[in-house]
Amino acid sequence: MQEFIETKSEISIFETCFQTKLPLLLKGPTGCGKSHLVEYMAHKLKRPLVKVSCNEDTNSADLLGRFIIKNGDTVWQDGPIARALRSDAILYVDEIAEAREDVMVAIHPLTDFRREIYLDKTNEVLKASAQFMFVASFNPGYQSSLREMKPSTKQRFVALAMDYLSVEKEKEVLMKTSSIDESIAKKIAFLGKKIRESENFSLRETVSTRLLVHAAGLIQSGMNPRLACHIAIAEVLSDDRSIVEALKEFINLQI
Amino acid sequence: MQEFIETKSEISIFETCFQTKLPLLLKGPTGCGKSHLVEYMAHKLKRPLVKVSCNEDTNSADLLGRFIIKNGDTVWQDGPIARALRSDAILYVDEIAEAREDVMVAIHPLTDFRREIYLDKTNEVLKASAQFMFVASFNPGYQSSLREMKPSTKQRFVALAMDYLSVEKEKEVLMKTSSIDESIAKKIAFLGKKIRESENFSLRETVSTRLLVHAAGLIQSGMNPRLACHIAIAEVLSDDRSIVEALKEFINLQI
Amino acid sequence: MQEFIETKSEISIFETCFQTKLPLLLKGPTGCGKSHLVEYMAHKLKRPLVKVSCNEDTNSADLLGRFIIKNGDTVWQDGPIARALRSDAILYVDEIAEAREDVMVAIHPLTDFRREIYLDKTNEVLKASAQFMFVASFNPGYQSSLREMKPSTKQRFVALAMDYLSVEKEKEVLMKTSSIDESIAKKIAFLGKKIRESENFSLRETVSTRLLVHAAGLIQSGMNPRLACHIAIAEVLSDDRSIVEALKEFINLQI
Amino acid sequence: MQEFIETKSEISIFETCFQTKLPLLLKGPTGCGKSHLVEYMAHKLKRPLVKVSCNEDTNSADLLGRFIIKNGDTVWQDGPIARALRSDAILYVDEIAEAREDVMVAIHPLTDFRREIYLDKTNEVLKASAQFMFVASFNPGYQSSLREMKPSTKQRFVALAMDYLSVEKEKEVLMKTSSIDESIAKKIAFLGKKIRESENFSLRETVSTRLLVHAAGLIQSGMNPRLACHIAIAEVLSDDRSIVEALKEFINLQI
Amino acid sequence: MQEFIETKSEISIFETCFQTKLPLLLKGPTGCGKSHLVEYMAHKLKRPLVKVSCNEDTNSADLLGRFIIKNGDTVWQDGPIARALRSDAILYVDEIAEAREDVMVAIHPLTDFRREIYLDKTNEVLKASAQFMFVASFNPGYQSSLREMKPSTKQRFVALAMDYLSVEKEKEVLMKTSSIDESIAKKIAFLGKKIRESENFSLRETVSTRLLVHAAGLIQSGMNPRLACHIAIAEVLSDDRSIVEALKEFINLQI
Amino acid sequence: MQEFIETKSEISIFETCFQTKLPLLLKGPTGCGKSHLVEYMAHKLKRPLVKVSCNEDTNSADLLGRFIIKNGDTVWQDGPIARALRSDAILYVDEIAEAREDVMVAIHPLTDFRREIYLDKTNEVLKASAQFMFVASFNPGYQSSLREMKPSTKQRFVALAMDYLSVEKEKEVLMKTSSIDESIAKKIAFLGKKIRESENFSLRETVSTRLLVHAAGLIQSGMNPRLACHIAIAEVLSDDRSIVEALKEFINLQI
Repeated sequence: MQEFIETKSEISIFETCFQTKLPLLLKGPTGCGKSHLVEYMAHKLKRPLVKVSCNEDTNSADLLGRFIIKNGDTVWQDGPIARALRSDAILYVDEIAEAREDVMVAIHPLTDFRREIYLDKTNEVLKASAQFMFVASFNPGYQSSLREMKPSTKQRFVALAMDYLSVEKEKEVLMKTSSIDESIAKKIAFLGKKIRESENFSLRETVSTRLLVHAAGLIQSGMNPRLACHIAIAEVLSDDRSIVEALKEFINLQI
Repeated sequence: MQEFIETKSEISIFETCFQTKLPLLLKGPTGCGKSHLVEYMAHKLKRPLVKVSCNEDTNSADLLGRFIIKNGDTVWQDGPIARALRSDAILYVDEIAEAREDVMVAIHPLTDFRREIYLDKTNEVLKASAQFMFVASFNPGYQSSLREMKPSTKQRFVALAMDYLSVEKEKEVLMKTSSIDESIAKKIAFLGKKIRESENFSLRETVSTRLLVHAAGLIQSGMNPRLACHIAIAEVLSDDRSIVEALKEFINLQI
Repeated sequence: MQEFIETKSEISIFETCFQTKLPLLLKGPTGCGKSHLVEYMAHKLKRPLVKVSCNEDTNSADLLGRFIIKNGDTVWQDGPIARALRSDAILYVDEIAEAREDVMVAIHPLTDFRREIYLDKTNEVLKASAQFMFVASFNPGYQSSLREMKPSTKQRFVALAMDYLSVEKEKEVLMKTSSIDESIAKKIAFLGKKIRESENFSLRETVSTRLLVHAAGLIQSGMNPRLACHIAIAEVLSDDRSIVEALKEFINLQI
Repeated sequence: MQEFIETKSEISIFETCFQTKLPLLLKGPTGCGKSHLVEYMAHKLKRPLVKVSCNEDTNSADLLGRFIIKNGDTVWQDGPIARALRSDAILYVDEIAEAREDVMVAIHPLTDFRREIYLDKTNEVLKASAQFMFVASFNPGYQSSLREMKPSTKQRFVALAMDYLSVEKEKEVLMKTSSIDESIAKKIAFLGKKIRESENFSLRETVSTRLLVHAAGLIQSGMNPRLACHIAIAEVLSDDRSIVEALKEFINLQI
Repeated sequence: MQEFIETKSEISIFETCFQTKLPLLLKGPTGCGKSHLVEYMAHKLKRPLVKVSCNEDTNSADLLGRFIIKNGDTVWQDGPIARALRSDAILYVDEIAEAREDVMVAIHPLTDFRREIYLDKTNEVLKASAQFMFVASFNPGYQSSLREMKPSTKQRFVALAMDYLSVEKEKEVLMKTSSIDESIAKKIAFLGKKIRESENFSLRETVSTRLLVHAAGLIQSGMNPRLACHIAIAEVLSDDRSIVEALKEFINLQI
Repeated sequence: MQEFIETKSEISIFETCFQTKLPLLLKGPTGCGKSHLVEYMAHKLKRPLVKVSCNEDTNSADLLGRFIIKNGDTVWQDGPIARALRSDAILYVDEIAEAREDVMVAIHPLTDFRREIYLDKTNEVLKASAQFMFVASFNPGYQSSLREMKPSTKQRFVALAMDYLSVEKEKEVLMKTSSIDESIAKKIAFLGKKIRESENFSLRETVSTRLLVHAAGLIQSGMNPRLACHIAIAEVLSDDRSIVEALKEFINLQI
């Protein structure tokens, strides 16, 4: 497990929520490390991790479970919530704001003092142990549908806002994930910071650490650093040719 | 059962509706204590409580019941309404305005002089005993869909408007639910009041008692009080960074 | 059966339609007595009453019947129309304008000279006897969906417009349904009239007799009359706090 | 069978289309006699009549047929088109413009030189005999949905526009369907004409012969003629109280 | 098979596409002869013809085939595409632009160099022989839905624009399909041309050869020529009474 | 396999992504060679190719697999993703932006460091070998639906923008795919370039290499070159008669 690089007490906040049994909501842009934090903390707290990503069709049966036909018999299949409760896991519901509204209602008894789920189809109550934790995430800057979390759901969580790494920390990540040397790693990390700060590119979402890692990987394979940044960063961030060209020129100035 | 702290005769109004067999509609914002009142009254009136939360997909079969396949046989499964009628319970239909319109039609015979439900699928009439009570709730300040209760449904209820607790009463709640001392409890309760009164934050919904309880719980666990309020209150109330920052500054002035 | 208090020949018009086998359409606001008239006339004409309330999902199978699986066998289950035809009942289709359009088409042969329904699923023709009557209702001042009755359906009916009772008649109703004394009954009936006449409250729908009956019932149970009117009338008619307060002040002037 | 009163060669046009095997489309307002013409011609041509009314959910399977489960076996059930073809009937598809588009496609081979339907589910071709005729109708002044007939469908038909009867002919109809005397029959027929000609009432659709027949029936039963016209005509034509009152005053001047 | 009357090399273009195995797209208004051309060419090239008309609900399973339950067994039923491929037929997909988008995707491998379809449900690859040809049609002047052909689909075809016949050629068609004499046939053909050229009638789609054939057929049966044109042409082209009357006057001037 | 003609390192970029196990996204207009590149690289890298084209109804089960009923038994059928993983193939998901959102979520674990898919229906984890590669494509200049790739999906890819061939290279393609001589091949390639550069035709999408190949094929069959270009290019690019005529004149000037 790659270590999580803290920027503002993310680890201790996560631990306190785990201990006080409060559900935690991670807010932040694509690729800022939300998933990494949860994976790291599951490792640190020695809990299994059950992860599910929501989309606009995700409904409560997808999360709780359903009866399926198997070899002619009807058998119950736990969904991720039931699996997590039975295994005292950390349950990570990614992009929760995308899910259908019945998901929100379904998790209510799990996210207040009751800490339980009633599976009406099997007439079973699943109680969360002290080792279970509910973590959800969403990206406030981007919602694909018109859905939004209702306050009655959101106010059940403690919320932690996350953001991109600093240049210094991002450089370290690049050096760990690929074996490029420090000077080029620093240039790429600095390029990421510059693109994020710039308001000239009208980007729907800006460059994530993931894109910088991709560029570093291509460079390590022997690709020309500028070309690597062009196809791993510029072409990914926009489909508008003039913006892509502007990004490429910007890259050429930095790399 | 934690005691319900009355602000305007909620308990006696609830009891009179129970005695005169009138359905009761609780109106009020998220976290003002609607669920707590119902739980407390079920305890006080010594009735079981059947609770169901509605969402935009909730239909009449979800509430009345349906046939399900179980071990190859078709068996009837009571929904919450049928369960409540058979057990002389208090039935609490939370966020009723969200439900599909056929729910409204289905409850009509239960909410007028007939006080009965006809389950056409089992050809059974369920009559409410004198011990059965119908309670519904909704939040007038927030509707996730464009649905609204039809007057022909709403006029079947007696309506009780609820609001947040006073500072003094909310302080008591905080001290009961966590063991923080009175001075910090009072500061947090006062902070809640101030945020509710302020019109500077453009909040979609304001701070509920639940958020103050979360903050108190984090503080009790040893977290810095300001940080606790930041993540339990400010980050939960808004995703707009400038509003979150304004809330944090506001918190820092009070705590 | 509580007697129906006529205001404009409702009873004789109903009887003439019954005798001349014309379908009758009742038009009027929520709570003006449409259901009561039908119940009273079924009693008076000594016919069973089959009632069904429509919503935006009601389709022709809901009214005609459908095959269901019962103990492994497929059995036909009559819907309300078929039940009414077989029992020479008065069929009352409430809020007909809400139903799906296939309902309108399905009732066409029942509402013209043919007076019959063809159940294609059982290949059966059900003929209406001279004792069968079709009554429908809708509220012209409120349609929850964008649906409206097509002229080709509406012109099959004789239409009877209904309205609220006079103060004197409503007072009698209040005294019959609860045992409050005449002076308070008159005040409540007069309050109803005043709210209906006022144009100051911007109400989506105004006070029905039902609400006045609720208030009377609460008063009879010993509740303060003003509080009874506040929660049975003012809080039910609006969710806008300033309108609710205006209604309460208006109530306090009258009661 | 009540005789059809021709106004512009409807009978001979119908007969010519029957002989030349051209499908016929009847266009005209609600209640102008489209259904009556088809019923009369089926009688005159000694053909059985298969009638189906379309709504916005009517699809090709509703018209062609489908497999149904009956006593555990899967059996094919002819729809109205198949029934009509097998029995050399006149097929009358009422309000065809309302049906789903796949209906239009399904009838194409039946309405051109092929005059046949392919039932792909039973792999059967049904050929129309010389005795089969396809008649459809729609009301150009009213479409409940946004659907319209595609030109590629409409141009398969010969079209016959129909309109209301003259005063003299409508008077005869009223005298035949009820035994009221000529003077009142004439007044009612004249009232119909006047309402149709008037542009003062902003009616969505104007008075059909059916409404005049209803009024005559109520009068025959002993109802006051003005009241009969009020409830059979004025209350049916509009739900706007001021228009209804204007219609009633207009009726009182004529009757 | 009635001969196809060429106006601009339709036959040789069709033959070249057949020989070079390019899919052909026929574009043109209702009734201009698209279907006739395909039927004629199937005859001329001695290939069977498989025709399918699309509507807005047509999906890929409708065209490829599906499993159906037959006498308790699950059997595969070829759709029109599979039938055409197995029989080396000309496949004619009429009004292709109306079909659902998955149809477009499904035909991609059939309309490029692969010339094959993969039936995933039966795990079978159907290869087109040299005798197979794919022809599609649509009417650019009329789309009932908002659908349009994607360029990635359309650029797979060679496109042939078709238009109405000349007066001389249309006259010949009328004389062949009915036995009216040349002078009236010419008048009707000329009437068709004049209506098509006129911009006074605001027609959604103009007169097709089919309508002229209908009029000729009615005249042959002894109907008055003007009446025949009124009901076969004017009443079919428009439902607007003033436009219909203008068309009738126009007809009366010509016939 | 026809050789792929590189314009900007497409082959080496593809190979580097294959080696560094990064998913590749091809962006470019219809017919610019995206599919050809993938087919060529599968051939060159000696990997099987699994291709799937998405449309607006494509969901995750279409790609992962589903249980189907086969001869009365329920059997699992791999979808293209599962097939590709089991056979160490290159998986090519064409027009990925069209697919439903659950497809995006489903491919997440396959496109990050995990490189695996969890088939919950069979409770099986499929791991990608080093030989597996994920390639997707979309056309930024054309989206049939309102869908767009979410940044959280798009940032998983390295992106390669592709464009049309140069005149010289396109001429070579035309000469290879048909045996027309160089002068006419050059004219056609030059015509393609001119149409692409022109802004006079208001085309939704411009001429692809495919259309030029079609024209060359028709010419090779003996068709007049201008007519070949008219029906293979002009009539395909637009349905607007004036634009088609302008294109034909433009063609006549060049050919």
